[in-house]
Amino acid sequence: MTGTFITVEGPDGAGKTTQLQLLADHLKAEGYEIVMTREPGGTRIGNEIRSLILNPDFKEMDEMTEILLYAASRAQHVNELIRPALAAGKIVLCDRFIDASIAYQGYGLGYSIEQVQEINRQATNGLTPDRTYLFDLTVADSKRRMVERGALDRIEQRDDGFRQRVYEGFLTLAEQEPERIQLVDANHSIDDLQQILRQDVLTYLEKRERLS
Amino acid sequence: MTGTFITVEGPDGAGKTTQLQLLADHLKAEGYEIVMTREPGGTRIGNEIRSLILNPDFKEMDEMTEILLYAASRAQHVNELIRPALAAGKIVLCDRFIDASIAYQGYGLGYSIEQVQEINRQATNGLTPDRTYLFDLTVADSKRRMVERGALDRIEQRDDGFRQRVYEGFLTLAEQEPERIQLVDANHSIDDLQQILRQDVLTYLEKRERLS
Repeated sequence: MTGTFITVEGPDGAGKTTQLQLLADHLKAEGYEIVMTREPGGTRIGNEIRSLILNPDFKEMDEMTEILLYAASRAQHVNELIRPALAAGKIVLCDRFIDASIAYQGYGLGYSIEQVQEINRQATNGLTPDRTYLFDLTVADSKRRMVERGALDRIEQRDDGFRQRVYEGFLTLAEQEPERIQLVDANHSIDDLQQILRQDVLTYLEKRERLS
Repeated sequence: MTGTFITVEGPDGAGKTTQLQLLADHLKAEGYEIVMTREPGGTRIGNEIRSLILNPDFKEMDEMTEILLYAASRAQHVNELIRPALAAGKIVLCDRFIDASIAYQGYGLGYSIEQVQEINRQATNGLTPDRTYLFDLTVADSKRRMVERGALDRIEQRDDGFRQRVYEGFLTLAEQEPERIQLVDANHSIDDLQQILRQDVLTYLEKRERLS
């Protein structure tokens, strides 16, 4: 695996997608080969699974079904897109990955963290991001930004208790893996946040190149 | 769990669905409360997952994605339909269950049997059928009957090597669990096969009632 796998995580409305797009543009301009993708989705089959998971009409969806559907989408994503891109030496920028399942389905729904981790380990055959940016945004701020965006999907419709458990779950993950997971304050301006990300990514990439 | 969970398994074209329907009608006439269902599918969400799995257009589907989608459909099926019916004391007749995943994805695709079992154990929280009828039909006979039926789905389009591994996988499962899995010869006439099933099911139900 010669490429670099970078993910962004955090609550809805934290600006992950905007920042990732700006970062992709910058890294391309710097001469890096970039694959930008997202979860759930990222592939044709993954997008079909995504619309199933997020459909607000499927209120009867069982929690284990949700966990397994995310894992199915992820297996397809990893094997069809992410591993081949990494093998070709590219930088893969991915909007959400396993940490999101652990935060949302594990901590949020109160499912066994070990069970969610084990299913995802099988789905991805153990693939872990090299670096993860966790966008830190309180539940109140996340909710305000989401309401401004409009219609909510099935997961976004969950209550504040759920959101709070997800938020705390993300912070727990960051504490457990301080080397991989970098906490960034989502309240910075778009420009400031982008400067922080660019600087960290470029420092990280240079360090990897020196070590390899 | 006061109800009885009965499944039928075996190659495509073995007559499982026809026999299950006849059995359901007979047991209803005998006064039993019956829920007849099938996999993949069995619920609204399960049917959406079913059309994804079987879509012949999705040739790029990863094997782990397929295993996880079957498991997701099964989790929904077990928690929404099968467990509530069993808790209400009904007889659930189900066309295919975990044995099919072990035979098709484990033995057929050559995936780790333990991995397929573990994912399905998590999906179903360990639910196992009380009795399973394995319809024994050779690969040649299965293929002939499927061709007579017309258009093949994504799984049915797999080659004879796959079919042979699935068939042998089913026989291995029957050897490992002779108490639960009853082998029935699918070459009997429809009427003869139905008589065999009725007699075995009624004997089994009477024995359970005596023991309870």
